[in-house]
Amino acid sequence: MNKVQSLLQAYKRNWSLERDFYANKEVFDAEIEHVWKKSWLFAGFDCEIPETGDYFLFTMLDQSIIIIRGDDGDVYAHHNSCRHRGSAICLEERGHEDKLKCPYHNWVYEKNGRLRNARLMPDDFDKSHFGLHPVHVSLIEGAIFICLADDPPDFSKETRELSPYLHPYNLHHAKVAYRERYELDANWKLIGENFRECYHCGPVHIEYCSVVVGANLVEDREAVVQDSMEIWKRNGLAVETIENENGSSHYATRYPLRPGMESYTLDGKPAAPLMGEHLHYDSGVVGLINYPNFWMDGVSDYIWAMRITPIDALHAAVDLTWLVNGAAEEGVDYDIERLTEFWKITGEQDWHLCENNQKGILSSKYEPGPLAPSEADVVNFHWWYLDKLRQGVKKS
Amino acid sequence: MNKVQSLLQAYKRNWSLERDFYANKEVFDAEIEHVWKKSWLFAGFDCEIPETGDYFLFTMLDQSIIIIRGDDGDVYAHHNSCRHRGSAICLEERGHEDKLKCPYHNWVYEKNGRLRNARLMPDDFDKSHFGLHPVHVSLIEGAIFICLADDPPDFSKETRELSPYLHPYNLHHAKVAYRERYELDANWKLIGENFRECYHCGPVHIEYCSVVVGANLVEDREAVVQDSMEIWKRNGLAVETIENENGSSHYATRYPLRPGMESYTLDGKPAAPLMGEHLHYDSGVVGLINYPNFWMDGVSDYIWAMRITPIDALHAAVDLTWLVNGAAEEGVDYDIERLTEFWKITGEQDWHLCENNQKGILSSKYEPGPLAPSEADVVNFHWWYLDKLRQGVKKS
Amino acid sequence: MNKVQSLLQAYKRNWSLERDFYANKEVFDAEIEHVWKKSWLFAGFDCEIPETGDYFLFTMLDQSIIIIRGDDGDVYAHHNSCRHRGSAICLEERGHEDKLKCPYHNWVYEKNGRLRNARLMPDDFDKSHFGLHPVHVSLIEGAIFICLADDPPDFSKETRELSPYLHPYNLHHAKVAYRERYELDANWKLIGENFRECYHCGPVHIEYCSVVVGANLVEDREAVVQDSMEIWKRNGLAVETIENENGSSHYATRYPLRPGMESYTLDGKPAAPLMGEHLHYDSGVVGLINYPNFWMDGVSDYIWAMRITPIDALHAAVDLTWLVNGAAEEGVDYDIERLTEFWKITGEQDWHLCENNQKGILSSKYEPGPLAPSEADVVNFHWWYLDKLRQGVKKS
Repeated sequence: MNKVQSLLQAYKRNWSLERDFYANKEVFDAEIEHVWKKSWLFAGFDCEIPETGDYFLFTMLDQSIIIIRGDDGDVYAHHNSCRHRGSAICLEERGHEDKLKCPYHNWVYEKNGRLRNARLMPDDFDKSHFGLHPVHVSLIEGAIFICLADDPPDFSKETRELSPYLHPYNLHHAKVAYRERYELDANWKLIGENFRECYHCGPVHIEYCSVVVGANLVEDREAVVQDSMEIWKRNGLAVETIENENGSSHYATRYPLRPGMESYTLDGKPAAPLMGEHLHYDSGVVGLINYPNFWMDGVSDYIWAMRITPIDALHAAVDLTWLVNGAAEEGVDYDIERLTEFWKITGEQDWHLCENNQKGILSSKYEPGPLAPSEADVVNFHWWYLDKLRQGVKKS
Repeated sequence: MNKVQSLLQAYKRNWSLERDFYANKEVFDAEIEHVWKKSWLFAGFDCEIPETGDYFLFTMLDQSIIIIRGDDGDVYAHHNSCRHRGSAICLEERGHEDKLKCPYHNWVYEKNGRLRNARLMPDDFDKSHFGLHPVHVSLIEGAIFICLADDPPDFSKETRELSPYLHPYNLHHAKVAYRERYELDANWKLIGENFRECYHCGPVHIEYCSVVVGANLVEDREAVVQDSMEIWKRNGLAVETIENENGSSHYATRYPLRPGMESYTLDGKPAAPLMGEHLHYDSGVVGLINYPNFWMDGVSDYIWAMRITPIDALHAAVDLTWLVNGAAEEGVDYDIERLTEFWKITGEQDWHLCENNQKGILSSKYEPGPLAPSEADVVNFHWWYLDKLRQGVKKS
Repeated sequence: MNKVQSLLQAYKRNWSLERDFYANKEVFDAEIEHVWKKSWLFAGFDCEIPETGDYFLFTMLDQSIIIIRGDDGDVYAHHNSCRHRGSAICLEERGHEDKLKCPYHNWVYEKNGRLRNARLMPDDFDKSHFGLHPVHVSLIEGAIFICLADDPPDFSKETRELSPYLHPYNLHHAKVAYRERYELDANWKLIGENFRECYHCGPVHIEYCSVVVGANLVEDREAVVQDSMEIWKRNGLAVETIENENGSSHYATRYPLRPGMESYTLDGKPAAPLMGEHLHYDSGVVGLINYPNFWMDGVSDYIWAMRITPIDALHAAVDLTWLVNGAAEEGVDYDIERLTEFWKITGEQDWHLCENNQKGILSSKYEPGPLAPSEADVVNFHWWYLDKLRQGVKKS
């Protein structure tokens, strides 16, 4: 029995995980192989590549994936590695290319990955065998997910259940207002755990709690929920919580802001024009998750999306994107500072918590500790993760 | 037989050690486990935390230890890792806390480590099982030593034999005048070896030799020693050298400055008021060692203490502390520049030697070389180290 | 069968190598052991150390080698590690020393490596056993090659066949006009491959192709070659191409610049006075290689030499040296900017190609791709490398 298997066996439900899950290279390599490379990963939004030939790179460890809008308007994903001697083809994080031309010897590929031209190769060279290696792509209302596995898991339930929450935002015509990247001294799961419980919100997230009723786990928000539910139903908004349980990867919910508050801002007032089909600043907060790397909070006027990427056992990156109505104009309809300060403040509080958590877990005396009842969703996150890992280890 | 065991067998007395002792990760891991985690380590001085609630962190590799003055005036040491989900509790290198409150979910511990409060946990949660993991503490006249082992080795002989040398300094009421940290590209043992021989002093330490008679191994200092011995005995100062031999970890001695010199300064004149019970600037130099990480030189007016901490096989840190009389006032009674320049100059000469030594040892043609007769204490240092390692490897 | 052996077996001629050859630590360690430590390595030029006692360091990984001009005028090479406790002896990259004195305890060595003095050692200490460990040295017309093996391979054929190309430059009296070092995020073999084919020259090296006829693989240069050959033969210059084949390590050739062009410069006009025995700016380009680390291009007025050094599986350094006539005076006879811009531009294009190549090879979907006919010398480079590796692995 190897390290991963014995760790899986030692797992105690409702307790934090053993240190090796947060620090060991063997475990990290196993989870990249069995969890990350076999799950649907959030890459970005299709509004980031509106035109044919627009592309961006999704990078995870040494894997670089070109996400490009094809001639047919579809989104394609390819491994960024020429079939000749392997050179990276797209060198910029974002750009526009009519053809995908390798910068080394100028082999030329179509946007759909087909090899179009390989100069000075022999006459009998069969180009049809040397297209770019494809990556699976799936869109949920404009949110782009990719899967590096040859046979990706079924994604229809996730698509079906997350769509109603995303649809009103009209993501295809949204606009990226701001991006920020943080590299944290913390295992990626510590970030996932942090965003699955509000046990820490009361003591830490003063700003968040001042806008979100009940986030401190002390206030009774039942009446507010009932009132809001009436409004949301009347407006045709999705309200049924999709629980993350039994090893499922996704979660969706809608919850109310504090009465009188209209957006995720320090003063609760809107920060931007309404997005998509929203008619009023009263749709509360849409909270979506798809493990392992997609976290999204949407209010009536903007979306804050978090993409987690593992770096190594001790480090992970979070890429944050703020989306607004595609017709909104910066400096006129919204102010970047005002739009982003709420999640910059709240996010940075969390990054520090995650990094402190990592530090203490490295202590030789660290051992799993008992979770509080309010951390039940951390247990669900563990369940999904451990299940994926267990399945992968069993097969390999 | 593993690498460490075969290296231990290949050891030749009176020769420098094989390269792997200074460069190999397997050896390094073994010595952390069997030498560093099972020895008493110098952490700092109790005058650094005079008040109840004052604390500082001792950090070695991933281990962070809180050293704190308790309500009862005793010094406590705890692993800096919350028993809930493991977060680090104290985040600053030095500070003052009335309670030890975890920044993540606000579990609250007493200074003695007892869990006082864990909010929102179930009624049947038994706090008595979740105190901070303790670390053993032992004080020698105000010098704080800790041991990470569950069953620390006996420390009474070291305490008994080092105390007489420390007592006259009245450490409890001393004051940290200055601190400096250097991170060296050198294995920690190269620093230890460097500080166990004066074979290099003549060619390298011009300033040191100008103040310390005989340090160049050429001058005859017998008469000076005899004269000084008379004075020291008359003043009731400890004079009996405690040899470091047969695998013991400690060493203590008193030796004279050059006649007319009164302190470790470039001109031999005092740099600060007399410390503790000293009545004159005539107590020579007190040299103390406790392996693996405590080196201290004291003159009548100040103490220079060195704490070594391993970083990896190729790197180590030295933390230097200058102590003076607790009543002395900076800028009035002493000048930082003047107080520190002697050991900054001498120390930096040594850091370069250690780093050059490491570089050359990495050569594929390096092999142990013959030690000079004046390097006998390097052999004693090797003895202690190899003995600890041998015992640990045998048990494991 | 270990990883290296199975990789060697999987090799397909005329295809790029498997990813592990460019990324795996085990393969890297094997090639350091069997390729780099058993081949003749280019270190520098003897005109860099004209006077007795002049030295420079050749550094590869942790190996530091002192290359020094001895009392007898010969060039010596020694491991830079004192035989006492192993300290590095020479600390500067270049310098002049009358004796090699260890900075730690002042053991003193002659330039030829003999231990001359070891202070305070016992009377029966036999200095004759403790000379510096020697490294084999071989000069080809002033180009210094060293070999770290105890029994270096025969180097007479390489010496015999490269000499006629180097002789006219009179290297002993040449002068280093400029040096530049680049550290690349690329395996060293990617640099070697890049410099063994001009398949990429047309699309990438605009400046190079404007000076070198036929470099774009499209132009017919046969007539120019014929005309040039007449001139070169008349001038007594070596013209016979020494092919790199059947696992040989060296290659030499002379090829013409575009008619009217006289030097490797952006405008094709000379950049410096003629070197050595050259009488006109009409000697074309001398291209020399000796695997694994020597690449040199010489025109009538200057030499551009490249020394490759591995850093790890993913990184390598290139040290570039521009040599001119020893009598030429900077600012008067040549301008540094003008002398170096051609190869700075062309080199930097290549460094980017190599780094992009490395990036894409790390893709999990990378697999060896088919080489073009114009990449035949890349295959020869692979042959030499794989042969060396195969021999080494077999013996070990």
